[in-house]
Amino acid sequence: MNKSVFQKRLATLRKNLTPRSPDTLWVIQPENRRYLSGFRAADAQLNESSGSLIINGEKAFLITDSRYTLEARRQAKDFEVITIKKDFITELSNLLVRLKTKVLGFEGDHLTWELHRQLAKQFKALKSPVRITPMAGVVGKMREVKDKAEIKAMKASADIMSAVLDEVLFSLEPGLTEIEIAREIEGLSNDAGAEGMAFPPIVASGPNAALPHATPTERKIGPKDPVIFDVGVKLDGYCSDMTRTIFLGPPDAGFKKIYRIVRQAQLAALEYVRSGEVSTKPDSIARDIIKDAGFGDYFGHSLGHGVGLATHEAPRLSVRDPVRLEKGMVVTVEPGIYIPGKGGVRLEEMVVIEKDGPRILTENDNYYDF
Amino acid sequence: MNKSVFQKRLATLRKNLTPRSPDTLWVIQPENRRYLSGFRAADAQLNESSGSLIINGEKAFLITDSRYTLEARRQAKDFEVITIKKDFITELSNLLVRLKTKVLGFEGDHLTWELHRQLAKQFKALKSPVRITPMAGVVGKMREVKDKAEIKAMKASADIMSAVLDEVLFSLEPGLTEIEIAREIEGLSNDAGAEGMAFPPIVASGPNAALPHATPTERKIGPKDPVIFDVGVKLDGYCSDMTRTIFLGPPDAGFKKIYRIVRQAQLAALEYVRSGEVSTKPDSIARDIIKDAGFGDYFGHSLGHGVGLATHEAPRLSVRDPVRLEKGMVVTVEPGIYIPGKGGVRLEEMVVIEKDGPRILTENDNYYDF
Repeated sequence: MNKSVFQKRLATLRKNLTPRSPDTLWVIQPENRRYLSGFRAADAQLNESSGSLIINGEKAFLITDSRYTLEARRQAKDFEVITIKKDFITELSNLLVRLKTKVLGFEGDHLTWELHRQLAKQFKALKSPVRITPMAGVVGKMREVKDKAEIKAMKASADIMSAVLDEVLFSLEPGLTEIEIAREIEGLSNDAGAEGMAFPPIVASGPNAALPHATPTERKIGPKDPVIFDVGVKLDGYCSDMTRTIFLGPPDAGFKKIYRIVRQAQLAALEYVRSGEVSTKPDSIARDIIKDAGFGDYFGHSLGHGVGLATHEAPRLSVRDPVRLEKGMVVTVEPGIYIPGKGGVRLEEMVVIEKDGPRILTENDNYYDF
Repeated sequence: MNKSVFQKRLATLRKNLTPRSPDTLWVIQPENRRYLSGFRAADAQLNESSGSLIINGEKAFLITDSRYTLEARRQAKDFEVITIKKDFITELSNLLVRLKTKVLGFEGDHLTWELHRQLAKQFKALKSPVRITPMAGVVGKMREVKDKAEIKAMKASADIMSAVLDEVLFSLEPGLTEIEIAREIEGLSNDAGAEGMAFPPIVASGPNAALPHATPTERKIGPKDPVIFDVGVKLDGYCSDMTRTIFLGPPDAGFKKIYRIVRQAQLAALEYVRSGEVSTKPDSIARDIIKDAGFGDYFGHSLGHGVGLATHEAPRLSVRDPVRLEKGMVVTVEPGIYIPGKGGVRLEEMVVIEKDGPRILTENDNYYDF
């Protein structure tokens, strides 16, 4: 019988462990959990987990509560589902005793300080104490490089988003509010079969376009406004992420200039999104172009980020945290220039790194040739 | 000049501090942040904060990055906005030195273990080290009792949800899929002016109704299926939360019986949702009724929870963590019985505790008189 993708991922995870690694891993981060097990439930809130994985050399468990038991059994077929009856900490502790766990690895960037404190206390009091230690990015690292099926899902996710954006832009007219347009995007995305939005759509017009993460408002878009659309959907769990800046009528010379610079920075940076290149290089290429044009103070964020089951994941394309780019990584390239009180321009592609360079997944013609 | 609601909340927060409290508080939890400052941005992801508050006896700062600076200034008018330029940990540390902070209180159930580790290390290395200590529920406690404006917002939120549910139920017919119905709910909620959903709508039919937190599927609802609708919207930040179980045609005797028991448990529990009562009492009342009817093993979750800026917040109505119920608290009362493989029934009201008892906010007639 063929191994499932989850069995393969478990095998890779186990192979990546060294003698110095924890003997048992505890996976609570929702995307890591889905990646390894297929369990699709979201967490209701940060402090309300819908489940977590316990994995050692031989066994793989999904621990959840009665609300999710049946869903977990259906979706995570390679995991043994355990339902917590009363108290998570006691029952997790009992399981670890049964598994003879000595060292439990946890996700330090997802576990809260308080739950760590309670667990450490409980584990210390055991007859054979369990040590608890952070495992930095073990699963996140695996997720950086996408396989063929994942890239196919991301392309399909990007195709939906791109088609929806085309449709919205076609019927765009002055007087519509940002919120109305954002809702149109959500509705059309649902109709097109998306699982949901990857993040709330950004529709930022006029001075609001100077806010890189603006929430849509009741503002009516005007005939000369720059309007930033930063949008993405989820499909089979995989996110898309793309940005276009649109003008309803001819913009003034200042915005045309800014647009040209941002587009030039993006195209130049894309040349360096290649296997073997260091991840800080595309950012510095784009940043230098924007700086040389006199707008260095108006590009406050980093150039891009990895995308996958999460909208933002490793690797980052920023001036910090250099890593080597690899074939199969999917990242965004999204320079921007933001003039407080006036507006801004951001352009974003999501690309997969292939043998010969980046392939744009968010194909969509809505660029200007100013 | 009248004090803003945020100035009043800051004053209450400061008044609640004792000599043994930290001299400076660090608020990162998004709903706590919004409650104290008015800053409405969501966090993009758990590990991507859009901002946090630093509050001491005299000063109140909102620390954010360039993506949110303008939004923060507009919304959090009683706070001084600080934009992080390069490195959050260093710049936070510099601010604390400037404020002469000795002990910084943090939210242990929201701060990640990893960020705590980095901060503790940085603070320890300072010339005058800053101690970092958890402050358990200081702001969450304030949020438990709602003021008039908050209750008004929650009633308006519930009214939208109730009207949308009426509209959806009116046009419900066999053959529609759970996903189609969930999207209809989202679309109508948007049209009705909701800020968004409080949580993804649950539409669970037939055997899926046995999954208390089911995600909508492609399953077509059948003429005799129980269909659980668990839905809520946000309005001005405030959540509503309500559940009805609907049958398109006459259900079989078994479901009628279950429905009667759940409704009886709910009505009996509501009698004890009163100021001065202990929070475990309504749960045990409902649980005993369900147990005595022979379905004790099929009611796995707790009776209810507080609602406000978050869908789930303090106080809980469960067998554990007894607290005294107070006037102004808003809680849900939602017993259920779930039969694996067959289906289930859950009924949920969101109520505010008034002088004479609970007032139902989620008024909606869709109950059966089996």
